[in-house]
Amino acid sequence: MTILRNPPRRGFCADEFALRVQRMQSILRAEELDAVFVTSPSNIRYFTGFDSQFWESPTRPWFVVVPREGAIIAVIPEIGAPEMARTWVNDIRTWPAPCPEDDGVSLLADTLSAVPRRFGRVGAEMGREMALRMPVSDFLDLGTRMPEMKIVDGTPALWQARMIKTEAEIDHIRFICEVASDAYIGLPDLISIGDTERTAVKRLRADMCARGADSVPFMPAISGPGGVAQIVCGPQDRVLTQGDVLFIDTGATYDGYFCDFDRVYAVGSIDDAACRANEAVWQATELGIQAARPGATMESVWKVMATALQDAGSIGNNVGRLGHGLGMQLTEPPSFREGEETIIQPGMILTIEPGMEYAPGKMIVHEEDVVITEDGAHLLTIRAPREMPVIS
Amino acid sequence: MTILRNPPRRGFCADEFALRVQRMQSILRAEELDAVFVTSPSNIRYFTGFDSQFWESPTRPWFVVVPREGAIIAVIPEIGAPEMARTWVNDIRTWPAPCPEDDGVSLLADTLSAVPRRFGRVGAEMGREMALRMPVSDFLDLGTRMPEMKIVDGTPALWQARMIKTEAEIDHIRFICEVASDAYIGLPDLISIGDTERTAVKRLRADMCARGADSVPFMPAISGPGGVAQIVCGPQDRVLTQGDVLFIDTGATYDGYFCDFDRVYAVGSIDDAACRANEAVWQATELGIQAARPGATMESVWKVMATALQDAGSIGNNVGRLGHGLGMQLTEPPSFREGEETIIQPGMILTIEPGMEYAPGKMIVHEEDVVITEDGAHLLTIRAPREMPVIS
Repeated sequence: MTILRNPPRRGFCADEFALRVQRMQSILRAEELDAVFVTSPSNIRYFTGFDSQFWESPTRPWFVVVPREGAIIAVIPEIGAPEMARTWVNDIRTWPAPCPEDDGVSLLADTLSAVPRRFGRVGAEMGREMALRMPVSDFLDLGTRMPEMKIVDGTPALWQARMIKTEAEIDHIRFICEVASDAYIGLPDLISIGDTERTAVKRLRADMCARGADSVPFMPAISGPGGVAQIVCGPQDRVLTQGDVLFIDTGATYDGYFCDFDRVYAVGSIDDAACRANEAVWQATELGIQAARPGATMESVWKVMATALQDAGSIGNNVGRLGHGLGMQLTEPPSFREGEETIIQPGMILTIEPGMEYAPGKMIVHEEDVVITEDGAHLLTIRAPREMPVIS
Repeated sequence: MTILRNPPRRGFCADEFALRVQRMQSILRAEELDAVFVTSPSNIRYFTGFDSQFWESPTRPWFVVVPREGAIIAVIPEIGAPEMARTWVNDIRTWPAPCPEDDGVSLLADTLSAVPRRFGRVGAEMGREMALRMPVSDFLDLGTRMPEMKIVDGTPALWQARMIKTEAEIDHIRFICEVASDAYIGLPDLISIGDTERTAVKRLRADMCARGADSVPFMPAISGPGGVAQIVCGPQDRVLTQGDVLFIDTGATYDGYFCDFDRVYAVGSIDDAACRANEAVWQATELGIQAARPGATMESVWKVMATALQDAGSIGNNVGRLGHGLGMQLTEPPSFREGEETIIQPGMILTIEPGMEYAPGKMIVHEEDVVITEDGAHLLTIRAPREMPVIS
């Protein structure tokens, strides 16, 4: 019988959004920005709580302005006004869209020009790990419409805010991590040798949804003798065969927040080389969790894991890093990688994701999700067993 | 018992992709572009067939270059190479990502600089109804790295290609339209007065998936006495009540292609004003279907529908247009709206979507999907009945 966990309350109260805006505004002041405007679904949801299936339609741009002081402003197509009015946002300005001649650009320019000006700089989603959801031509045009304001990259400021999760956000992510952990633990009861990768994903996904996940947009499953060649695409119709390693990763969501962690399973019994590599990666995960403390740089934690993997005979991997931030996106800054100087802080949620290719085409990757507190990293996931669970 | 339709074969053969590239290349020559490069999932899939759950991770940009002549080139993160190698694409160039210092920008610049140059112009996704999936800062940097090439808006060229569907694409969209039509017809057997909007969506969505839809990313449902105030957000927990109009729209997919059309239902019996508005909108749809012929402008078809709605007493609506293109996106160009001069051509797939607010907060909107052939518009959907089906 499946034991269900209690999900946190859906949505967030107005106080939560006020807190997020307040934090953003203090960052804006420190970064000398008069405002930041956002266009992408996760940033708009972060500040307003607004979510919609209508994001599937890329025709009309939507904007939310967070000024350095005062209330946030939604600048949106008329079609969306009734729904935005249900959020905590009071200042909603609309234009009749779609309107290729001027799809909100002049209204956005007027709105930005009217925010209290001190620095003459406005941040936009120009940088990494987020995409601007408006035509670039319109974005360039926006600049010419407000010569008194300089548009600069607002991404570092936005990530500074979003990287530190609130208690309510942490509760959301903890829940989805636990749901996925429970389902991973139960997987060996759901599949057998002879099933396909597709069957594994179908059953695991259904079980996660039954346990409380809203959706599972990311669930690659790859199997191969002793390890796998890649970790992001699949499943295929490949049949699980004695001696395989089955790798499954999961980005499941609850109320807009992701988990992101994988598990590996032994199909029947795996050979010694695979066992040794698995032990090395499990140990590297331990080291990563211990090293991920407030004050440490991301690079230093990467170094601890990378050294352990290298000592264990890693010939590399194609993932490009050993973990990353997590939240409303499956992957967020910062990254555990060489040269990444971001300092770990309480409130960050990070994935610890060491992996090694121990022979050509044979990769083993582990992953856990942790929240950083004053006294170090705490697991949000139920720690993977040291030895691979067996599918028989 | 549910009768299932035969789905078209999944995926497309290399000849299909070669045809798409060939068409794109002749457009590039006409538009005086040496190449176009794309970054967004639907454009990348259009030319390569590559699809991945990994799009959920916005950390690494991906690029595909379509040169004016010769083979297309994938410029992608190392992590994606094994999967891209499964497509018809032969020229795959990778870099170790993520790499904030240079996330593919120099490799893309080198690739674009090396395509046979004649016009010195490269198209990018700078325009309407698609979004550039790379940091804008990197995009601006790209320009400075290839001073010999001018980056211009490639969106009109891309839409010129994608707007005219191939036979294989039309077969895909026809199938998903029929699946959704069948499910809509069956809905009154699945729900009753007293059920909520959420229940209606849950059952209709499950039925569509059982009939062969891969996913249903868009299914707003809204109910209200005699009509609805908006058509894009919901469902909520509102209980279906005698006298309501229940509006449901559906963007379901099969193998990457969307349907997009709505249906309205009478909950018990609706009043005369709602019946009259429904008749007017049904008739406007007839007029739209008849008018959507090769050679007509989008505006002229809009005009026919808009006039009929106005004559029937419309006080407007907040949708901003009366239909649009459809394909790999829920909404694509062109739009049925004032000023839209695009000429209707065989191979276009369009939604005919007249709607009217006949009293404040009481909107009725119909929608059908058609394919344009030499002799006019042919329905892909099973035409909505003239009178609203009843939920009892």
